[in-house]
Amino acid sequence: MTYSELSEQIFQKRSYLCVGLDTDPRKLPRHLLTEADPVFTFNKAIIDATAEFAVSYKPNIAFYEAQGPRGWESLQKTLAYIPENCFTIADAKRGDIGNTSDLYARTFFDSAAAGLAFDSVTVAPYMGRDSVLPFLAYEGKWVILLALTSNPGSADFQRQQLHDGPLGSQALFETVIQTAQTWAGHDQLMFVVGATQTSELQRIRELAPNNFLLVPGVGAQGGNLADVSRLGLTKTGGLLVNASRNILYASDGTDFADRAREEARALQQEMAQHLASLD
Amino acid sequence: MTYSELSEQIFQKRSYLCVGLDTDPRKLPRHLLTEADPVFTFNKAIIDATAEFAVSYKPNIAFYEAQGPRGWESLQKTLAYIPENCFTIADAKRGDIGNTSDLYARTFFDSAAAGLAFDSVTVAPYMGRDSVLPFLAYEGKWVILLALTSNPGSADFQRQQLHDGPLGSQALFETVIQTAQTWAGHDQLMFVVGATQTSELQRIRELAPNNFLLVPGVGAQGGNLADVSRLGLTKTGGLLVNASRNILYASDGTDFADRAREEARALQQEMAQHLASLD
Repeated sequence: MTYSELSEQIFQKRSYLCVGLDTDPRKLPRHLLTEADPVFTFNKAIIDATAEFAVSYKPNIAFYEAQGPRGWESLQKTLAYIPENCFTIADAKRGDIGNTSDLYARTFFDSAAAGLAFDSVTVAPYMGRDSVLPFLAYEGKWVILLALTSNPGSADFQRQQLHDGPLGSQALFETVIQTAQTWAGHDQLMFVVGATQTSELQRIRELAPNNFLLVPGVGAQGGNLADVSRLGLTKTGGLLVNASRNILYASDGTDFADRAREEARALQQEMAQHLASLD
Repeated sequence: MTYSELSEQIFQKRSYLCVGLDTDPRKLPRHLLTEADPVFTFNKAIIDATAEFAVSYKPNIAFYEAQGPRGWESLQKTLAYIPENCFTIADAKRGDIGNTSDLYARTFFDSAAAGLAFDSVTVAPYMGRDSVLPFLAYEGKWVILLALTSNPGSADFQRQQLHDGPLGSQALFETVIQTAQTWAGHDQLMFVVGATQTSELQRIRELAPNNFLLVPGVGAQGGNLADVSRLGLTKTGGLLVNASRNILYASDGTDFADRAREEARALQQEMAQHLASLD
């Protein structure tokens, strides 16, 4: 999916909601456990219930990987079921030397490899340029690079001040955002930005005025949708805001899909207001 | 495997060789392609040929993941086949917020999850303390944290000077090595250190006098075993030196296992000399 197609979807659905498919077999409604593939059955119901309100789906690969080969099959089926007009994100936080990153890129982008063809993958920046370029070599595919995350450990390295960044003294995450923009344009590069850091979101928007920002953690991780929207939205959208647990586990009964739909709709309605107040 | 058990293995086999199982289906000897599971058949032959000379095996997870569910089955079988007295490394470069890192830890450490029980996993440090602790919560299991890698992109962030590290101005990788030692002792924490940076290896050994260093890339990536050994070895061993392509693809004919054995033996013999000169 291209930048303009994603932007179009956002204004058509009046939503920048990304539904995080962090599907934990231990949290599934009990009545699904007799299904042949409870994870896929659950995801299918969640997608059916939320597709009207979401522009993106983001399976967290760890949840599937932890099930072994069976988990990868649930992931393949889930990805195939996501509607064509939704932007798909493999939340995998990969990154390695060139020939290995190339294999991770094939895994998530080339359906001939592992039966998966996501639009994008989340990538960790620590190993630098040549660990990221193999993902960017896939035309029309996206890298969503970790920049500033919402967890306490983001203070350990991401927020450390660099002596001599491109802008003089600045934090590591600022250098990551600046440096990565020399590798790819905003048509292939997004950044992961933790929602709890609204004071820093403004700075990040200055550094990356045209890139989409993927903001995880509005909801369960304590972010504030109004702040994120005010500081992050652009004329072309420019935001994907993720919600996972609030939607997936709104109920653990037979009404789980209806409750997920209500949660997604409530978020979409708030987003529609923020989009309407753009100019 | 504990620190002292690994150390014992090293002095018993007079080797600190780690064989990297970066098994690429496109590079297998042609006569194996008719096997039911060519990747496992190849790995089994490589392990049989090299186990006398290696103290560790390191499957690069990307190579298995890129085969989808089938690849995970080859990985399960490969891990089960590695002899008990060898230290096993899941080279996965994982790292995410706490609850997701916990799932990655289960994937690679808890056989009840994905059928895998590695001794260790490689982890990327960018997200900080709480992204690493879930791996360390597994008693007797190891984190091998990315510190300084051998690829050109290591200059982008790892070598950037920090304004105010624990030691004043120092590189990011030095801060990573120092900070991580406040999270775990040398009985659970190793560092990945690129072999081409021998000038920096001395500095790293000062910062982490007791931790094992995993040095990938002696051989294909241009490292020098003599320099690495002189600067990295300690009285308890302290080094795992990885070789992958040189061993795996020494021949693409029916003699591939014999040639792999010769390569592994040559490395072991050089290592035995370096260990002997330790005194």
